[in-house]
Amino acid sequence: MERVYRLTISCPDRVGIVARVGQFFSGHGGWIVEANHYSDPVSNRFFMRHCIRAESLPFGLAELKSRFAEIAAEFDMDWHINDSDQPKQVILMASKDSHCLVDLLHRWHSKELHCDIPCVISNHDTLRSLVEWHGIPFFHVPMDKDNKGEHFRRVNAIVEEHKADTVVLARYMQILPPELCQKYHGQVINIHHSFLPSFAGARPYHQAAERGVKLIGATCHYVTQDLDAGPIIDQDVIRISHNDRVEDMVRLGKDVEKMVLARGVRSHLEDRVLLHGNKTIVF
Amino acid sequence: MERVYRLTISCPDRVGIVARVGQFFSGHGGWIVEANHYSDPVSNRFFMRHCIRAESLPFGLAELKSRFAEIAAEFDMDWHINDSDQPKQVILMASKDSHCLVDLLHRWHSKELHCDIPCVISNHDTLRSLVEWHGIPFFHVPMDKDNKGEHFRRVNAIVEEHKADTVVLARYMQILPPELCQKYHGQVINIHHSFLPSFAGARPYHQAAERGVKLIGATCHYVTQDLDAGPIIDQDVIRISHNDRVEDMVRLGKDVEKMVLARGVRSHLEDRVLLHGNKTIVF
Amino acid sequence: MERVYRLTISCPDRVGIVARVGQFFSGHGGWIVEANHYSDPVSNRFFMRHCIRAESLPFGLAELKSRFAEIAAEFDMDWHINDSDQPKQVILMASKDSHCLVDLLHRWHSKELHCDIPCVISNHDTLRSLVEWHGIPFFHVPMDKDNKGEHFRRVNAIVEEHKADTVVLARYMQILPPELCQKYHGQVINIHHSFLPSFAGARPYHQAAERGVKLIGATCHYVTQDLDAGPIIDQDVIRISHNDRVEDMVRLGKDVEKMVLARGVRSHLEDRVLLHGNKTIVF
Amino acid sequence: MERVYRLTISCPDRVGIVARVGQFFSGHGGWIVEANHYSDPVSNRFFMRHCIRAESLPFGLAELKSRFAEIAAEFDMDWHINDSDQPKQVILMASKDSHCLVDLLHRWHSKELHCDIPCVISNHDTLRSLVEWHGIPFFHVPMDKDNKGEHFRRVNAIVEEHKADTVVLARYMQILPPELCQKYHGQVINIHHSFLPSFAGARPYHQAAERGVKLIGATCHYVTQDLDAGPIIDQDVIRISHNDRVEDMVRLGKDVEKMVLARGVRSHLEDRVLLHGNKTIVF
Repeated sequence: MERVYRLTISCPDRVGIVARVGQFFSGHGGWIVEANHYSDPVSNRFFMRHCIRAESLPFGLAELKSRFAEIAAEFDMDWHINDSDQPKQVILMASKDSHCLVDLLHRWHSKELHCDIPCVISNHDTLRSLVEWHGIPFFHVPMDKDNKGEHFRRVNAIVEEHKADTVVLARYMQILPPELCQKYHGQVINIHHSFLPSFAGARPYHQAAERGVKLIGATCHYVTQDLDAGPIIDQDVIRISHNDRVEDMVRLGKDVEKMVLARGVRSHLEDRVLLHGNKTIVF
Repeated sequence: MERVYRLTISCPDRVGIVARVGQFFSGHGGWIVEANHYSDPVSNRFFMRHCIRAESLPFGLAELKSRFAEIAAEFDMDWHINDSDQPKQVILMASKDSHCLVDLLHRWHSKELHCDIPCVISNHDTLRSLVEWHGIPFFHVPMDKDNKGEHFRRVNAIVEEHKADTVVLARYMQILPPELCQKYHGQVINIHHSFLPSFAGARPYHQAAERGVKLIGATCHYVTQDLDAGPIIDQDVIRISHNDRVEDMVRLGKDVEKMVLARGVRSHLEDRVLLHGNKTIVF
Repeated sequence: MERVYRLTISCPDRVGIVARVGQFFSGHGGWIVEANHYSDPVSNRFFMRHCIRAESLPFGLAELKSRFAEIAAEFDMDWHINDSDQPKQVILMASKDSHCLVDLLHRWHSKELHCDIPCVISNHDTLRSLVEWHGIPFFHVPMDKDNKGEHFRRVNAIVEEHKADTVVLARYMQILPPELCQKYHGQVINIHHSFLPSFAGARPYHQAAERGVKLIGATCHYVTQDLDAGPIIDQDVIRISHNDRVEDMVRLGKDVEKMVLARGVRSHLEDRVLLHGNKTIVF
Repeated sequence: MERVYRLTISCPDRVGIVARVGQFFSGHGGWIVEANHYSDPVSNRFFMRHCIRAESLPFGLAELKSRFAEIAAEFDMDWHINDSDQPKQVILMASKDSHCLVDLLHRWHSKELHCDIPCVISNHDTLRSLVEWHGIPFFHVPMDKDNKGEHFRRVNAIVEEHKADTVVLARYMQILPPELCQKYHGQVINIHHSFLPSFAGARPYHQAAERGVKLIGATCHYVTQDLDAGPIIDQDVIRISHNDRVEDMVRLGKDVEKMVLARGVRSHLEDRVLLHGNKTIVF
């Protein structure tokens, strides 16, 4: 993968944004290798993502940011520029189920996912050996029902200590406290094992079996204080039939969960996901 | 299509059902061309559908029913035998949107759907010419908001007069009164333009846009007194993105609606759908 | 739908294209409502599609073209600008099977497809009444096996007379002569009833049944002199099983054919399809 | 999972097969928990799969086989009865790519796949540590281009020594010699990284990119002497666009490959796949 700077922008829509940004880069010889735009007709907000070949610019990231800040101010932009050579620091959290964790670790190990995984945190010790085989530190942080606060204080400390910018709940199965949701807004990705908004909350496959649906699904979303109601990044479904009992749904659903989570995480890592209220733009 | 008798059975599960039924048919030289079974592990109920080549039996439908009644009584069966040469009488109901109606009429006209369509009923006169081109009578039964009762009395009269055994709500957009739901239990098929149970009720595409889902869907189900909560026959979804406005969802959703409705109606016409409480077995 | 100018570009890739084009439009107050880019890393060719709100520009289409020609020359562009208010002239050609034709006509009739359909041409008279119900002239141009030349001379005359810019072969089932393929390069859209390149040529469902595939498909492509080998616009598949005989594949395949054709035609009508050798960019 | 006997049958179709088999089991109190039938209308061959609760029968597997042999002879059946408690012995073969191997190992490790994996064979040593972490012996059998015979003699010896009844080529990337294909007919499962019959042979993703298809796929099939032409067990596809380069196709294709292979292997392990010439019945 060639090195690129990834610029993402969100600002009020008006004439001249694309031209101004394009001019800025071409003026410095910047080679745009990927460009996406979206104008939201309801909110009149404009979203953009550009990838610029790093070596085509005569300056580095800091200088680029400093120079771009002028344009950003002019157009009242929310904006970020990331360097594809500076991988995100992603902490994975899991419980006992291994399918999502194995999938993400394998994608990382085979260099499909470009990120660092400083550690894995779990409320059980079950998956330690698996994680450690990958050469990744494993933190077992037990969950005491009567003292969840202590659990999350330790989780928070580990996240801070490792300077993580992304936390992925790979079937972690515990509800994050509101203060963590707020603190890490847009940085915590969860996989919920239903096609949201159907079957939010506990035991979604049991709910699905009860209702007699013909497709089951999974939803990858950013975590907010409202349970299973945060901005959706990706979803998918799989066909089932009357033949499938709850345990078959659980098994079939695992494949959807891990695929949807991996796609969502990949989009996040490549800065393809822009927040727009409680929705997402996924370029 | 060769002529077959379609036997459907639902009864308490126990040893010997398949053998007893198989023996009955083979004893009369009956050639089974299709056979499906399902044992529900939760309710311990057994479901079966057999297609028997009509000409392989030495007697006709009446005699077949009379002889089979003994076995049915022995095993406490809910059962039906239909003759594939006696098409169901299906009344279509629509409003102004034509996509589902056109689709069903075309499938009928091109002999893909084996049924009779004695008439189409609509609360608007918009689709009259389309229906009449197919040589099918069109009844415009206006809906007076202050007197819905009168509307449904006329609808009921038309259904009775045409001896319909199935009513398909092809985007009819009105809520059937409870007494009709009960009277025609398991005979009225609706298409709802969402992936139920998400977005039941009015304006599901607007609800979907509001929630920011990444797939939209449609659900074909039998109508019951509980709005959009009846037994689901079939469902499907289509991928959307942030680019798709509500009007795009409406357009894309139409394709899913008509496909899902057509599949559900086809299954119903071929006696493939067995009710199991508020769920369906679809063989 | 608001009126837009749709600009499509293909040119050698280099720094500054987006900036120059963006500058051109913003300099005239042009409001870009949709923008897509693609840089092909193999051929180093750049592709772009912009939609500009017509009323945001101070001049009309002719002036726009004349002014843009300078930039186009500078960057050695293949380019087109179309006005969304000037619908394409689309002639549909069919044989006896109605599913694709009905589908396209219905989408046109319900204003989902924005184009004019000056006429339908068929080598059989079967579908006349259907077409004429839509108020569209129907030309029955019989095909004499011993004189195909005469058939295609008449077809060509009708296409020329109606100033068609697009011809859609909606299961027309005849092979266009090379001179027509060349003359209307990139303007004739065909639907082939297989997932190309598998099962090109005659009786693809029989070929599929013979091979025992588990999915069947359809392919929408531009017609070239090489049978079923032109640039692919869209494809899709549907799952089948051992239970499905050839006639079931034919039935199930019809749904895929009409959906894929409709999507391909829609993309073509909206100038979303750019040719790139024997491949397509579909924005 | 409760213990069941899995009976699979293939025989000339005629009246009375189902009745005779049903009678046999019910006569011994045998509880059928799953039953599938298929009559092929072209070959007039009948296929069946029954699962009978083991504990409902008054005798064991040997006695069951001995008694059933009479019926089998009467109807000229190809037949097998397997005990779900006697897992198949499955040897996995891989090369350097880990995605299919990791996926299968994880499904086995998490008890989703019910089989024994006596060992993994590879022509490279790359995946040893991964395999051994699972507690499975790993045999590195190098491939000498000038002496492929030696490689396959050792492979054959290992397969024989471990009494394997199934070999899964999990992206093994070498062509089995004809004598092995014949010897293990219906026992060797391969995953090919294209939607066969398109793009058989080498570098299918490059072929796909060259042709400009809009979907790529994978095919799980039994290996025969004809390269990539054996009976297909399962297939699936994933949508791509002009944006996806060959390396993106390789990445996206991996997910389809591993899913399709896992589904095919699962069907095989549960005795759901019946051979019918060069096609399969998958119950």
